Amino acid sequence: MSAQATNNPTSENAGYLRIATEEAWAPIEMLDLYRRMLAKNEGGPGFERLIGHYMTSDAERPRFVRDRLTDLGESRLADMDAVGVDHAVLGLTSPGTQALAPDAAREIATLSNDHLAEACRRYPARFSGLAAVGFEDVPGAVKELERGITDLGLKGLICNSHIRGHYLDEQQFYPILEALEALEVPLYLHPNTPNDIMIGPLAEAGLDGGIYGFAVETGMHLLRIITSGVLDRFPRLKIVVGHLGEGLPFWFYRLDYMHGGQVASKRYEAIKPLQLKVSEYFRRNIWLTSSGMPWAPTIMYTREVVGPDRVMYAMDYPYQYLAEEVRMQDNLPMSSQEKVQFFQDNAIRVFDLDETAISSGRVSRV
Amino acid sequence: MSAQATNNPTSENAGYLRIATEEAWAPIEMLDLYRRMLAKNEGGPGFERLIGHYMTSDAERPRFVRDRLTDLGESRLADMDAVGVDHAVLGLTSPGTQALAPDAAREIATLSNDHLAEACRRYPARFSGLAAVGFEDVPGAVKELERGITDLGLKGLICNSHIRGHYLDEQQFYPILEALEALEVPLYLHPNTPNDIMIGPLAEAGLDGGIYGFAVETGMHLLRIITSGVLDRFPRLKIVVGHLGEGLPFWFYRLDYMHGGQVASKRYEAIKPLQLKVSEYFRRNIWLTSSGMPWAPTIMYTREVVGPDRVMYAMDYPYQYLAEEVRMQDNLPMSSQEKVQFFQDNAIRVFDLDETAISSGRVSRV
Repeated sequence: MSAQATNNPTSENAGYLRIATEEAWAPIEMLDLYRRMLAKNEGGPGFERLIGHYMTSDAERPRFVRDRLTDLGESRLADMDAVGVDHAVLGLTSPGTQALAPDAAREIATLSNDHLAEACRRYPARFSGLAAVGFEDVPGAVKELERGITDLGLKGLICNSHIRGHYLDEQQFYPILEALEALEVPLYLHPNTPNDIMIGPLAEAGLDGGIYGFAVETGMHLLRIITSGVLDRFPRLKIVVGHLGEGLPFWFYRLDYMHGGQVASKRYEAIKPLQLKVSEYFRRNIWLTSSGMPWAPTIMYTREVVGPDRVMYAMDYPYQYLAEEVRMQDNLPMSSQEKVQFFQDNAIRVFDLDETAISSGRVSRV
Repeated sequence: MSAQATNNPTSENAGYLRIATEEAWAPIEMLDLYRRMLAKNEGGPGFERLIGHYMTSDAERPRFVRDRLTDLGESRLADMDAVGVDHAVLGLTSPGTQALAPDAAREIATLSNDHLAEACRRYPARFSGLAAVGFEDVPGAVKELERGITDLGLKGLICNSHIRGHYLDEQQFYPILEALEALEVPLYLHPNTPNDIMIGPLAEAGLDGGIYGFAVETGMHLLRIITSGVLDRFPRLKIVVGHLGEGLPFWFYRLDYMHGGQVASKRYEAIKPLQLKVSEYFRRNIWLTSSGMPWAPTIMYTREVVGPDRVMYAMDYPYQYLAEEVRMQDNLPMSSQEKVQFFQDNAIRVFDLDETAISSGRVSRV
């Protein structure tokens, strides 16, 4: 769980900035609220199974996670230094606001954005942040997103998959997607446990979390966004997805073939013609990160099928904090230029990061 | 949908037998029963959504599918000839017996096995078959499996994923797995629509079928079999899975990492230590077929991570009948020897097929 304390051997001479793009944080106020909800059995089975362990266990790993989630200062920076991560793009940890009633969601989003923006201002070389919103109050979400991007300098929007069982392809959420497109910032579609309808058969087998349920839930969410026509309606919407695309790149041929068949048969009411093939949206609207998937075969496969300008580095700190995983990705069978793209340039481009500030941070540490 | 009528240009000179390993059939009696169930709204939403279209639509494709499903003679053989498929391993089409009440399931399994075995005896060069059973009557299933293999010469057992919401990792089914191990024949774990608990959010988006729901359902089923310890209990059990492993090979690193974490945390009651890593069972107990996934990048990736002796050809006739897909796989970037393995030898080995009979069939056709 915890990384080696030694400096990563390649951290100073790698030839690229290591920008980690799916890094989690949480305000203390949100964790306190989560604890109160757990005590009252509020939030549903997915919520309880996702965060109950981290909020209540006294074992080393959950204690480390809940300590580091709330830190936006020295401990986190020291951990980043220890494994050679130059810069972290921070998002509100799952489920974020998305297990909360609308009033609490709005309140947590606002204070999260304020805290996070303050840390980014304090450490511009080391941190960028994604805005949180309370999705169920759509006009409020649009306002808070605009404030987060325009006033606070945040770099995108975090969405921890389902919104108490609802999905972003529902028309009620279109104003949020419209605002993302207008602001030219990406949506980070992050995993959550499956919605409360679907979780049962996964939970009884212990498969509802990071091992499989996250992929089922988040892959379905991304596919719903595509097949519902959202990306035809908002053709400049940018979506970043972790875990190398939640498995969907494995399925490209079949997604295109089956979608074509579904359109032709008119058998499925919700399936309508799209302007592009399903897989083609991955080359126009979607970027993927390597969070939790530091393994060369899968990274190289995914780069092959979506293009090298679409895949970038992530760690998933503090949940998955391993020097070895940084090294595995340093050793990917790519040219030096391709590694710059993977660790640095793709992230700078899609999140519109301040390369000068980030570079100055690295220089000062060498 | 229908293949070109011309002979596949490479069918005579390919240098290998094309053995297709996930080919569907259905006795007329089962389709009649399905129609009666549909008329009475029996069988549940997954059943209705999976086969309602094929049983009732007058469009060309569903008419072709239901006509060819029931044919174990000249039409099917002509279609195989037209695309250069030498031999088909036939299994009862999804959901087979698994949407039926126990008495009907037993009856359909018995008559299916008799019909199928008769066709295999009549065309030993062209057809092999998998036994069907009524899973819910476990002692009856064991007997019918033994009859199917020992008396009728069938080559394995078809399981169309969930058994009215139940999964093979449940201890009630252990006698069936024990019989498979003793008989040294494989289980073919074939897709079905998600169980009735999970199907809702997929169905409302039109994603419950081959485009995504099959993978969610069947990937979960396979993972349940592994993580429940079934393959430690039955270490010589052989499982064949379609669609290149229902997406799980994409997740190997993460499955191993997360499973290790789950075991260490003792956080999930159903997750216990296993003798091997999750991914290692794919190199000991599991074989994969290319049904519905004829695309070179995914086939080559999967071969890389499970080994070339684990991946073999399938077509999914009559659902996916395309000469182009045969050609795509003829053109895979493999050596001639590797193609023999992919199209021919892996299937012969795992299903214990009669190579002499199959070869004689080819010779007589040239």
